[in-house]
Amino acid sequence: MPDSGALRYERVANLVQAQIASGALRPSDRVPSIRAMARGAGVSVSTVVQAYVHLEKLGVIESRPQSGFFVRAREQLPATRQLRRARSARPRSVAQDVIDAVLDAFLDKDVVPLGCAVPDPQLYPNRRINALIRQVLRDSPQHAGEMIVPPGDANLRREIARRFATFGAPTPLDDVVITSGAIDAVTLGLGVTCRPGDTVLVESPTYYALLQVIEHLGLRVLEVPNHADTGIDVDAVRQAVRGNRLGAALLVPNFNNPVGSCTPDDAKREIVKLLTEKGVPIIEDDVTGDLPLGGPRPRPMRAFDESGFVITCGSAAKTVALGFRVGWAVSSGFAQELKRAKFLASVAAPTLPQLVLARYFASGGYDRHVRGVRRQLAANVQAFITSVAETFPKGTRVARPAGGSLLWVELPTHVDGTEVFRAALARGVGVMPGVVFSASGRFRNYIRINCGVPWSPRIASAMEKLGRIVARS
Amino acid sequence: MPDSGALRYERVANLVQAQIASGALRPSDRVPSIRAMARGAGVSVSTVVQAYVHLEKLGVIESRPQSGFFVRAREQLPATRQLRRARSARPRSVAQDVIDAVLDAFLDKDVVPLGCAVPDPQLYPNRRINALIRQVLRDSPQHAGEMIVPPGDANLRREIARRFATFGAPTPLDDVVITSGAIDAVTLGLGVTCRPGDTVLVESPTYYALLQVIEHLGLRVLEVPNHADTGIDVDAVRQAVRGNRLGAALLVPNFNNPVGSCTPDDAKREIVKLLTEKGVPIIEDDVTGDLPLGGPRPRPMRAFDESGFVITCGSAAKTVALGFRVGWAVSSGFAQELKRAKFLASVAAPTLPQLVLARYFASGGYDRHVRGVRRQLAANVQAFITSVAETFPKGTRVARPAGGSLLWVELPTHVDGTEVFRAALARGVGVMPGVVFSASGRFRNYIRINCGVPWSPRIASAMEKLGRIVARS
Repeated sequence: MPDSGALRYERVANLVQAQIASGALRPSDRVPSIRAMARGAGVSVSTVVQAYVHLEKLGVIESRPQSGFFVRAREQLPATRQLRRARSARPRSVAQDVIDAVLDAFLDKDVVPLGCAVPDPQLYPNRRINALIRQVLRDSPQHAGEMIVPPGDANLRREIARRFATFGAPTPLDDVVITSGAIDAVTLGLGVTCRPGDTVLVESPTYYALLQVIEHLGLRVLEVPNHADTGIDVDAVRQAVRGNRLGAALLVPNFNNPVGSCTPDDAKREIVKLLTEKGVPIIEDDVTGDLPLGGPRPRPMRAFDESGFVITCGSAAKTVALGFRVGWAVSSGFAQELKRAKFLASVAAPTLPQLVLARYFASGGYDRHVRGVRRQLAANVQAFITSVAETFPKGTRVARPAGGSLLWVELPTHVDGTEVFRAALARGVGVMPGVVFSASGRFRNYIRINCGVPWSPRIASAMEKLGRIVARS
Repeated sequence: MPDSGALRYERVANLVQAQIASGALRPSDRVPSIRAMARGAGVSVSTVVQAYVHLEKLGVIESRPQSGFFVRAREQLPATRQLRRARSARPRSVAQDVIDAVLDAFLDKDVVPLGCAVPDPQLYPNRRINALIRQVLRDSPQHAGEMIVPPGDANLRREIARRFATFGAPTPLDDVVITSGAIDAVTLGLGVTCRPGDTVLVESPTYYALLQVIEHLGLRVLEVPNHADTGIDVDAVRQAVRGNRLGAALLVPNFNNPVGSCTPDDAKREIVKLLTEKGVPIIEDDVTGDLPLGGPRPRPMRAFDESGFVITCGSAAKTVALGFRVGWAVSSGFAQELKRAKFLASVAAPTLPQLVLARYFASGGYDRHVRGVRRQLAANVQAFITSVAETFPKGTRVARPAGGSLLWVELPTHVDGTEVFRAALARGVGVMPGVVFSASGRFRNYIRINCGVPWSPRIASAMEKLGRIVARS
C-alpha cells in the first residue's frame, strides 16, 4: 500500500477529465477500457478502477453492466426546470488544490496566517480556560469515560439560552442543541430541512465553507447579493421567494463572511417574514455575531421569528476556544430533529469542552473578554486598511467591515485573485482567493484577508509582499 | 416561541400520516388545505405549514405550485430496479420515539445502563488521562486558541499508524485522517464513496447507528447474514456482488454489534477480494477490534487489501476516552478525500483530546490497560450469561460473544423485544430492542444487553426485573 497511491489514481482521473474538457471524450462516449488505460497510463489495473469509481462518484462517468464506462450525459434535475432564474446552480467545487493548499498552509507555522478566518491564539482567554479545565478535572475526574449525548450538557445549554436573551432573542432551554462547532450545526440544519436536489438561498459573496457543505449534501444554490453597506439585498430575497421553490435559506446577517457587513434589523425582519411565510426555514450562521467592531451586539434573525422556522448556528470558536470544536444550533421548530440528527451523524460533542465552556460562561468574564477582543480586532482592521491603502496599487478598493476580522479586497479588474493566492503562498503568505466565495464564479479579482492577527513587523512585511504581488499582476 | 411548537406540528404531521396509513388519503390525493387543516386541528397556519414542510422533507407529500399539497406517489428509484434481490431497501427509520427514549435514558443516571454499548466510566484510564491533560496544559498553554485542521495531529496519526502495524496492517502516516469519533469516520467514508440512492452492503443484524447514517445520507441497504459462530456470510457476499451494483460495503468484521462475532481471516480475505475486484469500497467499523474476549487482536480487513479500497474506522471510545469524541479513518486510496470531507463537514476534530491521546498512546500504557479491560469485560459477560440462564424463561438463547461487551439475546418467539424495551425502561432498566439492528424489520424477538458495567447487586436486580418482564410477555 504505497502512500503515493492516491496521487496515481488522481492522475488517471485528471487525464479523463482533461479529455472530456478538451472535447476528445464527449457525453455518452465510451471511456478507454480499464486494461487499455492501465497500459496507456503505466499504472496498475486497480489504480484505474479506483480512478473510474472516483469519476463515477463525481458524476463524470457512469458504468453500464457488461459494457464498461461511459461519459455521463449532463443531468436534467427536475429542480433546474422549476427555477425561473438562471442563477440557481450547483455550487462550484472549490478547486481541490485550493483546499489542499489552505489546509497545508494552516498547519505550516511558517506561513503568515492571513488566509483562514481565525483570530490569533493569543486573543483567546487561554489562562482562564486552563484554570477551568483543572477545576473540571478535580470535580469530574471521570469526564473522559463519560459521554454527554444530544441535546448536550444542560448547564451549557442554559448559559447559551441566557446569552440569547441578552441580545433580544429569548430562548427556552429546550431549543438549544450542542454541536461539534458552527459548521457542524449548519450541516445538521441543512440536513433536517432539505432533501438532495433542493435549492438553498445564499448570499453572494458568502463563506466558502457554507457553499462546500451545500455541495457536499447534494443541494443547489440561488444567490442574492450582499452589499457592504446594507447587507443582504431584501428586494432580491423577495424576487427569489416569488420565483423559486426553496428548501432553505442559509444566511449570515451578522457580519457576512467575507464582506463584514451587518444586515439591519428592518431588513432582517422583512427577510424572516418573506421566507417563513412561504415555509422556507432559515439557517443563520451567527458565529461572529458577538464581534461588532463598534455599536451593540446585533440581533440574530431568530429575534424576528414567530414561526419557529429559524435555526441559529453559533460557536465559541471566534471568542473563547477555537480548539474546542463546540457549537450550537438553536431553534424552536427543529430542536427535536436537530438533536436526533446530531446523535446519528456523530453521536455527541466532546465532554470536557462542554463542561469547561459552561463554567466559562457562568463565571461572568465573557462580556469583558469579548470587549477586549473587539477593541483588538478594530485596531487590527484599521492597521490592515491603512496598509492596503499604502501598499496596494491604484484601483484596489476595500470596505470597512462592521464586525468580525475580515477584509474583502477588490483588486484592479485585470488581477486574478487565485493567481495572487498562489504567488503569495509561494512567498509564505496565506490569503483566500475571491472565487471560492461564490457558486457562480464571480469575485475573480477579489481576495479575503484575515485581520485576526495583531499588527507586527512580520505582518507589515507580509502585506508589502502582497501589495507587490498584486501590483505586478 | 413556545417550546411546545415542535409537538404541535408533529401532531399535525402524524394526523396526515395516519390518514395515509388508513387509506383515507391515497397517492396523488390532495392533502387538506393549510387553512382547512389549521381550523380542523385547532392550530395556527404556521404550525400546519411546518407540518407539511416536514412531511414533504420526509417524502410523504409534495407541493405543486398554485395547487397545494398532494400525497406522493411511491418513488421508483433507478437503483431499485437494478437489484435482483428483494432484500435491498431503504433502512427502516428507527422509530423516533425509540431514539428519544434511548437518549433520555442515557442522560438519566437512575436508569441502569444496559442499553448503549458503552463501558462503565470506571473502566477508562481516567487518572492517567487527567495527568496527561495537565501535562498538555503546561506544554501547550494556548491549545484552546489553536485548531488542528485535517488530517489532524501528526503525532496522534503516527501512533495510530504504529498500532495498525502491530496487528498486521502496516500503515503509512499519510493514510490516517483524524475524525470526531468512529461514527463521524463512517459518515465521511460513506460520503466519499457513495452518492444518494446508492446501495450499501451491510450485515444483518448490524449496529443501528450504521443503519441510521445510511438512512441519513439517502442510501439504500442490502443485507447479508452475520452468524454468531462464523461471522459475515461469505457466500451471501458473493451472491450480493454478482446480482447488484453496490456503492460501498459497511462491515463490522471485528465483533459485529450486536452479535459479538468475529469474521475469520480467511473469510475477511475472500470478502475483500470479492468486493474490491468489483471496485466496491469497504468501510469497516473496527471500533471494538482491540477488545477480543480471548485470543489475539484480530486483523482488520485492511490487512487483506491490495487495492487501497478499504477505509478502516476506529476510535478511542471503547478503551481510552469515550468523552473525547476522537476517532480515525485509515485508507490508502481515500485519505485525501477523507481529509477534505472532514474539513468541509465540521472543519476539525477537537485540539486537546488529540494532543492527549497522542501522548497516551506514545507513553506505552495502552496495551496493559486494554488487557485489563478485556479481562473485566470477559468476567462481566460471563456474569450476564449466567444471569440470563438463571432468570430468563425457557426458549431464550444467547451466543457467547468473541469480543466487545454485548449480549445478543434471542427471546422466545412470541416475545416482542420492543415491548420488553418499553416495559424495562418504565422500571428503570435500559436495553436495546432487536428490530433497530436490521433494515428489514427482523429480530423482533431479540434484545441487546450491554455488559460493559461490572456485575453488582444493582445489575443483578435489573437482570431479574428483565427476566420477569420477558417471562410475563
